[in-house]
Amino acid sequence: MTAPLKIAIAGLGTVGAGTLKLLDEQAELLALRAGRRLQVTAVSARNRNLDRGVEISGFQWFDDAVEMARSAEANAVVELIGGSDGAAKAVCEAAFESGRHVVTANKALLAHHGTDLAAKAEAAGVSLTYEAAVAGGIPVIRALREGLAGNRITRLHGILNGTCNYILTTMRETGRDFDDVLAEAQQLGYAEADPTFDIEGVDAAHKLALLSSVAFGSRVDFDGVYTEGISKIAAMDIQYAEELGYRIKLLGIAEMNHEGIHQRVHPAMVPADAPIAAVEGVFNGVVTEGDFVGTTVLEGRGAGAGPTASAVAADLVDIACGRHAPTFGVPAATLSATPSLPMDRHTGPYYVRLMVIDKPGVFADIAATLRDAEISFESVLQRSREPGGVVPVVLTTHETSEAAMQRALAAIEAIEAVREPPHMIRIERG
Amino acid sequence: MTAPLKIAIAGLGTVGAGTLKLLDEQAELLALRAGRRLQVTAVSARNRNLDRGVEISGFQWFDDAVEMARSAEANAVVELIGGSDGAAKAVCEAAFESGRHVVTANKALLAHHGTDLAAKAEAAGVSLTYEAAVAGGIPVIRALREGLAGNRITRLHGILNGTCNYILTTMRETGRDFDDVLAEAQQLGYAEADPTFDIEGVDAAHKLALLSSVAFGSRVDFDGVYTEGISKIAAMDIQYAEELGYRIKLLGIAEMNHEGIHQRVHPAMVPADAPIAAVEGVFNGVVTEGDFVGTTVLEGRGAGAGPTASAVAADLVDIACGRHAPTFGVPAATLSATPSLPMDRHTGPYYVRLMVIDKPGVFADIAATLRDAEISFESVLQRSREPGGVVPVVLTTHETSEAAMQRALAAIEAIEAVREPPHMIRIERG
Repeated sequence: MTAPLKIAIAGLGTVGAGTLKLLDEQAELLALRAGRRLQVTAVSARNRNLDRGVEISGFQWFDDAVEMARSAEANAVVELIGGSDGAAKAVCEAAFESGRHVVTANKALLAHHGTDLAAKAEAAGVSLTYEAAVAGGIPVIRALREGLAGNRITRLHGILNGTCNYILTTMRETGRDFDDVLAEAQQLGYAEADPTFDIEGVDAAHKLALLSSVAFGSRVDFDGVYTEGISKIAAMDIQYAEELGYRIKLLGIAEMNHEGIHQRVHPAMVPADAPIAAVEGVFNGVVTEGDFVGTTVLEGRGAGAGPTASAVAADLVDIACGRHAPTFGVPAATLSATPSLPMDRHTGPYYVRLMVIDKPGVFADIAATLRDAEISFESVLQRSREPGGVVPVVLTTHETSEAAMQRALAAIEAIEAVREPPHMIRIERG
Repeated sequence: MTAPLKIAIAGLGTVGAGTLKLLDEQAELLALRAGRRLQVTAVSARNRNLDRGVEISGFQWFDDAVEMARSAEANAVVELIGGSDGAAKAVCEAAFESGRHVVTANKALLAHHGTDLAAKAEAAGVSLTYEAAVAGGIPVIRALREGLAGNRITRLHGILNGTCNYILTTMRETGRDFDDVLAEAQQLGYAEADPTFDIEGVDAAHKLALLSSVAFGSRVDFDGVYTEGISKIAAMDIQYAEELGYRIKLLGIAEMNHEGIHQRVHPAMVPADAPIAAVEGVFNGVVTEGDFVGTTVLEGRGAGAGPTASAVAADLVDIACGRHAPTFGVPAATLSATPSLPMDRHTGPYYVRLMVIDKPGVFADIAATLRDAEISFESVLQRSREPGGVVPVVLTTHETSEAAMQRALAAIEAIEAVREPPHMIRIERG
């Protein structure tokens, strides 16, 4: 058997401790699959003395993760520090400079610096892999980069954030409101104390930028991702979605056409029988469309110590076996600079909920506004009556452009009887 | 750029022609992803002059595929002849003897000779890959072998035959009977003129034996797969399943415990909300359970020229990149000889439909028989009344052993008022 693959781990939070646990418990299995042992030699974290439930006394300790990446006795560095810059980035760069492979779970880092870091890894002749950065344990990066390598990918969409999916699923199942369910998710550990990155779609946008790059062979363009979160979704919208045959999901969607790449993360209504609609709770799912393979669906646990450690281990086994793929599927220098299209170029059907004063003539004003914007209805629902009070009016449109819709929404908001900013949710075919 | 990967293709049926089409149309993309061109140099088939919709005049022609595997100017041979022995096997062996990699879509061949062929490929220092042999374009072999390499797989189950799934889905959607839907599937090209291998579960069993080997690191044991097809499923059973909250699917199930491996292919009732229940029509799906990753679901097109060619191309790109994995995840010599457990060791709940004469006392006799076998009911349904006529009685049981169930069924069949052999379908948790 070949010499062990020596591994240094930077960051010993939940995922770091889970990775140590996996590498220990599965040592024999991994050695068989990799053809050599996977041996942790060094670790680094902020606090050496924290009880993490795993023994670290047998590893060389580094206070400074960058120093570890530069000088530890290791062939591969696992970066689990997190953050889009700072120590995480420095660790990767130090590893490359000293000829070490990097495995990371850091979507923020790669969303911001992926193309650049991929080029640095290539120049150093080492791997930069990140299966754990997208959709937890689901091997979706491998699937796109290798399993579907024979296809031109035309579109992908996915549920990429378990926190949001848990919240939306629970809202639907219980009829409760967003704030209430978020508070519960925080208690259960499914949402962070500061949940902004999750609920505002930023985390999903990080992941989408990476998927998009691998799918289309384009440079990572996080700034090109249109991002909108779920904090404005009301229990009422979820009920209307159900009535209309849809479910509301926070989707990441990437599409490529001859003009460029659409990358967007926003709440979407998808048909209740679409595969992605069945991905519930903390699960993640990714649906890809390839020209030869057709539609492929991957689903599984998107976060947590076990699934994330599973993905890290898969990358380490690849390195141990000498299996290498360019970070984003093709050499960094050949990644295209295909432009990301602005959101106002999007077209599709829309759901709009308006809170209006229940009096004659209001709907005529709304209808006139939409007519002026050349937007046609598919359906209109006004279930409750409360003369003189405020009631919801829900409408769905046929396909129209985002630009037209935004103009119409601004005009509708200006109507005196419309008492709240319109609640708009895009409808996707799933 | 490195020299092209030279490819010889044996067998130019639907999949062979599809593979030529893909390699031609995606040539630039594949070259980018593989770092070198994928160049077909030689082909072989039974009939040189058939119009296949693809140009083959630029390739060296071989009447004899084995001769091609031995002497063509090729680094890799794609075996698309089919069949568990004969030319297909000889082609693989000739390729290994002459140091050529093999990519195959042939599940029958590997189900019967997989361990042996894997050893021969290893001895020759070449790859033997078969992503196309299981679940068409879904990259499930890669997912198990590489993406989930950090996990001990405890169980997997899947819909592995699109023909059966199309038939069962159509039966459910239309209420029509098996023979009728099979005839239609044959007309549509979803079923072969001789559909035996598909509808009797043999094709699914071939695939299950391969998945099982990769999942558990065990020798391929096709003979250890219990196999039962769908030809006895009646429209009535599908209706009862619906009423009881289940769907009927032909499942391949592999489980490993401390005693050995259970491998079985049979119709199963799965909860209507289980992920596998949502895999409909010609789609395939595989659900795996790993100790760290939890449940992962993969779904997509399980057959057809495009999806199968997609899987062949993925294997070729791996070879072109020098990415190698042992055929069944670990070196052939280390595959375990874990025994396959006989079906009578299975335990689970059961659905049984009896056609009985509608007269007082019949059910008491049935109940006594089940009591004697120590099997307890979960539910009993007798919807229709037709005094003196034959009516269905449906019962579901709590968990019991297959051995006890088979004894009880034999005893029930001997009851005079029971007019048909009992219709038994196993219930799975999905």
